[in-house]
Amino acid sequence: MATRSKEEPSLAHLMATRRSIRKYQTRPVPKARLARILKAAYFAPSGADRSGYELVIVSDPELRRQIRARCEIADAEWHRNAAPWLKAWLKKKGITPEKPFLEDAPYLICVFGDNKAPYWLGSTWLAVAYMLLAAEREGLATLTYTPGKSKFLQKLLNVKSNLVPVTILPLGYAAERLPAKRIKPGTRVYLDRVDARRALKLG
Amino acid sequence: MATRSKEEPSLAHLMATRRSIRKYQTRPVPKARLARILKAAYFAPSGADRSGYELVIVSDPELRRQIRARCEIADAEWHRNAAPWLKAWLKKKGITPEKPFLEDAPYLICVFGDNKAPYWLGSTWLAVAYMLLAAEREGLATLTYTPGKSKFLQKLLNVKSNLVPVTILPLGYAAERLPAKRIKPGTRVYLDRVDARRALKLG
Repeated sequence: MATRSKEEPSLAHLMATRRSIRKYQTRPVPKARLARILKAAYFAPSGADRSGYELVIVSDPELRRQIRARCEIADAEWHRNAAPWLKAWLKKKGITPEKPFLEDAPYLICVFGDNKAPYWLGSTWLAVAYMLLAAEREGLATLTYTPGKSKFLQKLLNVKSNLVPVTILPLGYAAERLPAKRIKPGTRVYLDRVDARRALKLG
Repeated sequence: MATRSKEEPSLAHLMATRRSIRKYQTRPVPKARLARILKAAYFAPSGADRSGYELVIVSDPELRRQIRARCEIADAEWHRNAAPWLKAWLKKKGITPEKPFLEDAPYLICVFGDNKAPYWLGSTWLAVAYMLLAAEREGLATLTYTPGKSKFLQKLLNVKSNLVPVTILPLGYAAERLPAKRIKPGTRVYLDRVDARRALKLG
């Protein structure tokens, strides 16, 4: 078994305490931490072992400023067109088209899926999940942020046309504290076609 | 911090040792372990907190027999139509349309994405990744298995038409041992548009 310090949190703890963070400190992130998070992605299973994604990390302030500007324009439109229930949810959460985290977080991990790889979209999201948990392990905050439009990232970041922008993960130290996640009893779980939430004590 | 036994493996260890398993023991899996794995899915972030997926666990042998039969027919066709490089990869890995794991593994977690939820496909795969790691934590094996055709699962398992079959996770004790995963240096990682694999020591 790998060496493990006494302070290492359990998987269950990492999953429960990890929250999507929208407020970031501008404090720099050590490159070794970034590297460990990127390495975690490599371990995610992927269709025919092809990985199916490419990662472009942005730290340059001018590039981040441009990304923010384009995302905010796209998100203003996305907010206008959102369904009423979604508008209510966004309001409750205080989410607006303003995206300061795109400039505050020292790194943006721009995740592109390679649409020529088999099962590329699933493979890409599995790698994202591995990075989310690895970031939590490193004491860093993230968010799976999907702008209303994201095609512009291909040109701005000079990636090939088969690489589809999937999500942007800001990476940095959190500037807000959120409580551990509560289990949502809403998700339906069936066992052999019978509702199993009670039988399995899923809350 | 949550209580943690001394034997609890680190996140990095879980990620590196977890392998996609295609051979399973028929030995039963305790329901408490299954429940902990399903609970892990609840903690994954999801678009507008809507979860965006539904889980149907199949243990009934007759249902599993039917699922296997349908999947093998679909996979025979999928194998015939695979690109040459994919055929070579499948041969190297010994993967054929035969899917005994669908009957050997005591549980099949059939994962459906709710295409009415925002960002449902990404949310569903994030939940899958959480379950993969939780299964490894429980000493159990899994595989993200995507049959060549899967629409039949809706009718067979009596789920609504907005629930799209995404993947099947067989869950059980492994009947094969695979070495820890090696890092694939092939995945491209850029930092501010410059190849960063060497700078970040990503192998």
